[in-house]
Amino acid sequence: RVNGDRLWDMLMDMAKIGPGVAGGNNRQTLTDEDAEGRRLFQRWCEDAGLTMGVDTMGNMFMTRAGTDPDALPVYIGSHLDTQPTGGKYDGVLGVLAGLEVVRSMNDLNIKTRHPIVVTNWTNEEGARFAPAMLASGVFAGMLTQDYAYARKDMECKTFGDELKRIGWVGDETVGARKMHAYFEYHIEQGPILEAEDKQIGVVTHCQGLWWLEFTLTGREAHTGSTPMNLRVNAGLAMARIMEMVQGVAMSEQPGAVGGVGQVKFSPNSRNVLPGAVVFTVDIRTPEQAKLDRMRATIEAKAAEICAALGVGCAVEAVGHFDPVTFDPTLVASVRKAAEDLGYSHMNIISGAGHDACWAAKVAPSTMIMCPCVGGLSHNEAEEISKEWASAGCDVLLRAVLETAEI
Amino acid sequence: RVNGDRLWDMLMDMAKIGPGVAGGNNRQTLTDEDAEGRRLFQRWCEDAGLTMGVDTMGNMFMTRAGTDPDALPVYIGSHLDTQPTGGKYDGVLGVLAGLEVVRSMNDLNIKTRHPIVVTNWTNEEGARFAPAMLASGVFAGMLTQDYAYARKDMECKTFGDELKRIGWVGDETVGARKMHAYFEYHIEQGPILEAEDKQIGVVTHCQGLWWLEFTLTGREAHTGSTPMNLRVNAGLAMARIMEMVQGVAMSEQPGAVGGVGQVKFSPNSRNVLPGAVVFTVDIRTPEQAKLDRMRATIEAKAAEICAALGVGCAVEAVGHFDPVTFDPTLVASVRKAAEDLGYSHMNIISGAGHDACWAAKVAPSTMIMCPCVGGLSHNEAEEISKEWASAGCDVLLRAVLETAEI
Ligand SMILES: NC(=O)NCCC(=O)O
Ligand SMILES: NC(=O)NCCC(=O)O
Repeated sequence: RVNGDRLWDMLMDMAKIGPGVAGGNNRQTLTDEDAEGRRLFQRWCEDAGLTMGVDTMGNMFMTRAGTDPDALPVYIGSHLDTQPTGGKYDGVLGVLAGLEVVRSMNDLNIKTRHPIVVTNWTNEEGARFAPAMLASGVFAGMLTQDYAYARKDMECKTFGDELKRIGWVGDETVGARKMHAYFEYHIEQGPILEAEDKQIGVVTHCQGLWWLEFTLTGREAHTGSTPMNLRVNAGLAMARIMEMVQGVAMSEQPGAVGGVGQVKFSPNSRNVLPGAVVFTVDIRTPEQAKLDRMRATIEAKAAEICAALGVGCAVEAVGHFDPVTFDPTLVASVRKAAEDLGYSHMNIISGAGHDACWAAKVAPSTMIMCPCVGGLSHNEAEEISKEWASAGCDVLLRAVLETAEI
Repeated sequence: RVNGDRLWDMLMDMAKIGPGVAGGNNRQTLTDEDAEGRRLFQRWCEDAGLTMGVDTMGNMFMTRAGTDPDALPVYIGSHLDTQPTGGKYDGVLGVLAGLEVVRSMNDLNIKTRHPIVVTNWTNEEGARFAPAMLASGVFAGMLTQDYAYARKDMECKTFGDELKRIGWVGDETVGARKMHAYFEYHIEQGPILEAEDKQIGVVTHCQGLWWLEFTLTGREAHTGSTPMNLRVNAGLAMARIMEMVQGVAMSEQPGAVGGVGQVKFSPNSRNVLPGAVVFTVDIRTPEQAKLDRMRATIEAKAAEICAALGVGCAVEAVGHFDPVTFDPTLVASVRKAAEDLGYSHMNIISGAGHDACWAAKVAPSTMIMCPCVGGLSHNEAEEISKEWASAGCDVLLRAVLETAEI
């Protein structure tokens, strides 16, 4: 078993970097705080005897050597970046649990045939630069590095410039590494494990996603002196699309979600009808056919809504992945580890996207989940217990040991 | 008649300060550009022999002496501040037409019994600091200076600090001046005069207004892993309120408008359901009973919408004025001036709010309007012709001369 106290202490120390306003964290990708978090993680890893490689996307690979020079490494990864008002565990738990697994192996003097590589993926959250899981997406060959470097934040700073600015452009070619297997341990970010009173989620699938960025073009006009029948009201069109997305998601229940998290009105003045409204629709479901259908329905209905109001409507897909099925052998090894350790467990589908979804494109991959209080995540009030954290880490250690071969 | 070319040249020179991105202006109140515009106006006025007074709200009063030391002045006013993506004429025309009236009097060597005071009111637009017509509201005793000084922009800078920063806190007590009469000349900002092919709008009334700022409290949560039935979706509540406001305005046709120009999601991240949504509803109508009814209906229905979603709903009125009836004598003198000059004219109700609405609380007041292309305002593409501009200025000169007594 791992040292749960040590894992917890690392989590609390990391949370000191980029504190939020309400007990959580604001350590968004490629900020100074991200750089500081990376340096702390690097120091801990080097103290544990790991050697660092960094690729041109800023992904950090911390290697514990194996006994067989020809064996591909087993990767354990997640992310240290957070939402602007994020929690202390989303992503961070998976990275630091990887390190704790290695530290426990060191303590127990365990050697594995395959090397172990603890990984911190850049910009998993996609909060500052869409899409999410950007750097693992480039690693897996699903997105190009040029595309990634050109992604812009709300202040029009590019990913490439910011990665350089914080000093974390490495020299490895992205995606050059080959993996024997990939494990990711993460909080559930949903309510199921807690409601079902299970310690471990054995993750079999991940929902597919589309992020549809709508740019609606209305006519900037005075809110007071512009008669109702002369308005080209892009804000009203947005409202109708938001209601429509809700309706589409509800009509696809169970197993589908849809919502809007980001909205921008221009010029955003109280007495000006917006000339431009930009917002992102996020839709997800584990079923490929349903995902395709939802996207098609939403785009068609949005076009109708806008046409009826004379509003221009452009849609850009700024994030996408298909539903994922994790590797059955690794899934079975996670389930067996939970059983052997006497932890209650159940199969679960990941609602959120994870770097494991891209890793699954290039290597056998799987995930482990622990509960989180009230299913709350992407919220500074995100909470887990030390016991939950270490139970999942025990399972991770055991499954990794089986896969990496003692 | 006035010198239409000179008026136009002043308009074009002023438009060079704080240029917009699409041919209009961004010279928002209490910015460096506002200060620069004020200095240019001051220089022009002093060249025309006017003497300056500035009050503690930064309102500028440029006086041409009258022949009777006991006669109260006739005021001509409007504003030099603009929307973030505003036009070159909204407000500016009224101030510079006042100066052109004085310059024409100088040219013609006309003396009046009452002094003439050309006025630039601070923060008419309310774009940076709500509410609109802030400084004329304090002047008229409808708002307190403490309230005004504490108003905050989106970066939480206060009106008081910014007024000081740009160096335009005067020494006059606000509202100490008494007016014999108040005239304001403004572009219509609506489509009626152009559609009816009239040169002059004789403004009889102004619509009343409420700005209702809604703060909706939802639960920040992950857009992917939070099931539909567990969402406390403040964004969806906003969408429903926007549609409801549209419905309320439509059900009160003709003579009512309602819309939303400003929206803020927090944290405004694509994969986070917003924890807080703040937006402002703008409703207007010339009928007092209808205005009261619209406000009551909107607040009641918004509360229902939010309750059904479990979303918290707080409403603050951040702007308000009742419908205004302008002074019948001044209105008649504007109509007569248009007639005498042979300009086509019609009665009109102002759709937008103006400093004249507050001036009307403390002095006989009225307005003159000229058409604008396509009724477009609060848009950089706002346009008028030189002929329109000078026709209204001719009417202003004539009506002012009658009121100020030659
Ligand atoms: N795990 C997580 O919250 N990832 C962010 C990407 C997503 O929106 O699912
Ligand atoms: N004239 C004008 O646009 N004033 C701004 C205040 C309003 O919204 O009516």
